[in-house]
Amino acid sequence: MSKPLIHNLTIIGVGLIGGSLARALRQAEAVGTITGAGRNREHLEIAQKLGVIDRVETDLAAACRDADMVVLAVPLGAMQAVLEQIAPVIGDNTIITDVGSAKASVITSAEKAFGRIPPNLIPGHPIAGTEKSGVEASFAELFEQRRVILTPTETSTDPAKQLVSNMWQACGAQVLEMSVAHHDAVLAATSHLPHMLAYALVDSLARQDDSQEIFDYAAGGFRDFTRIASSDPQMWHDICIANRESLVTALERFIADLQDITRAIQQADSDFIKQTFQRAKQARDAFCDK
Amino acid sequence: MSKPLIHNLTIIGVGLIGGSLARALRQAEAVGTITGAGRNREHLEIAQKLGVIDRVETDLAAACRDADMVVLAVPLGAMQAVLEQIAPVIGDNTIITDVGSAKASVITSAEKAFGRIPPNLIPGHPIAGTEKSGVEASFAELFEQRRVILTPTETSTDPAKQLVSNMWQACGAQVLEMSVAHHDAVLAATSHLPHMLAYALVDSLARQDDSQEIFDYAAGGFRDFTRIASSDPQMWHDICIANRESLVTALERFIADLQDITRAIQQADSDFIKQTFQRAKQARDAFCDK
Repeated sequence: MSKPLIHNLTIIGVGLIGGSLARALRQAEAVGTITGAGRNREHLEIAQKLGVIDRVETDLAAACRDADMVVLAVPLGAMQAVLEQIAPVIGDNTIITDVGSAKASVITSAEKAFGRIPPNLIPGHPIAGTEKSGVEASFAELFEQRRVILTPTETSTDPAKQLVSNMWQACGAQVLEMSVAHHDAVLAATSHLPHMLAYALVDSLARQDDSQEIFDYAAGGFRDFTRIASSDPQMWHDICIANRESLVTALERFIADLQDITRAIQQADSDFIKQTFQRAKQARDAFCDK
Repeated sequence: MSKPLIHNLTIIGVGLIGGSLARALRQAEAVGTITGAGRNREHLEIAQKLGVIDRVETDLAAACRDADMVVLAVPLGAMQAVLEQIAPVIGDNTIITDVGSAKASVITSAEKAFGRIPPNLIPGHPIAGTEKSGVEASFAELFEQRRVILTPTETSTDPAKQLVSNMWQACGAQVLEMSVAHHDAVLAATSHLPHMLAYALVDSLARQDDSQEIFDYAAGGFRDFTRIASSDPQMWHDICIANRESLVTALERFIADLQDITRAIQQADSDFIKQTFQRAKQARDAFCDK
């Protein structure tokens, strides 16, 4: 057997993303030993029984001591605490990456934990997932043909970048680089904002007196539109807090646009309404698969 | 052959809805002769060749003269003009119904055209459709197990109500009654408002400088969320104008809710954020099929 890409891999947080990464790297024969780390031993033992990880470790520092690569696959809200626990044992030869949906906050947390932005940290974000969560839902093909955005910092080293990039490519993903600020703004617009709208709409309707009836009459379009409101509330809370600044900017811009449309409808401004809808349809048809 | 439910049926506007109604009634052997009426002869001749209608008529008054039932399946923006053309020939024995997504505006148009709200008018709204339009996309099963809301007026007669109800039941639909105001408010909340949000979001992103890139990074949730932004702009313009009052109320309430969420994110008000998302997830999971 040839030398694997990563000899000792530690994944902190073995859920849908962490578990799928482990499975994909194993399938690609790109990894030696996989240590699964986290607070919940029982949960990790399930992952071990499923063959997703080789070793279970609830002491995060111990889990990272001999690692060549540490992947932080914990919720964004746990990132700061995890980084603080592992910082003392992470040497220059251990590469760190994460899978969080917001990137500036991870870098800020790392800077606090390490006293500087570690040059061996390559923040990452695989644009992949399902509505399910947990290691039981993980599968090796989750990242195939999906995009992974890396947001290296000014001090990030090339070998670190290369290894993280190779890791995701071994999972079948397409790896791209982006600045931290740009990543956070783009994701706020295309992912975090739509989730806010879906959550707000369903909650708004649910709080009305006749909510049962309202949902009864919702048609197919409503189901599609609100599917993302079934996403994990705690995870999305963490994303909101972590990407607060970009998300508030996106929300404020959207509210202003919505106020313009409301005014146009109120004034029966047909030109404005039709132009808006036509531009949107054109963009939707051109940019997205149907 | 037993006597059909409707001897002479006239459908004005033979598109997806009008065409599917014709096909469904034919399949159920619930109709004698179907006259397809509209402005565009060529278009109606296609419907005739497809076997959807028996007769083609571009003179709307002539099309209605001997009809037992007239179904208005034209866009909401055309309703007023069509009602004015047919009003002079509609006798008390001809029942009229429509398929518009907003109901108060249809009743107002009818009152203007007839000089009173005709007692033989039963406004209706089948909650069914696809992203496609036109008679070529029509099919007999479109209304099966779908809801049709009837909003009879104070003067509507029972036999008229009964026949329209029987017509939709013959198509496999579940028929319900609702007040006009309630229909328009419920549909504004569950259908018209979500369409506004999808159109506004896609347009808002499309107008940004880096729109191409923004759409490139949009994940699966975004595609689902914005699918309805591919809907027909002219049709949705008409719906906005027709249901203006209820829609503006729904938009204003939603904007206020969105402002509350924005404030909560800005202030990192975790309790507010989590409670909102949890309520929404619970409502979405409870009320909608996944």
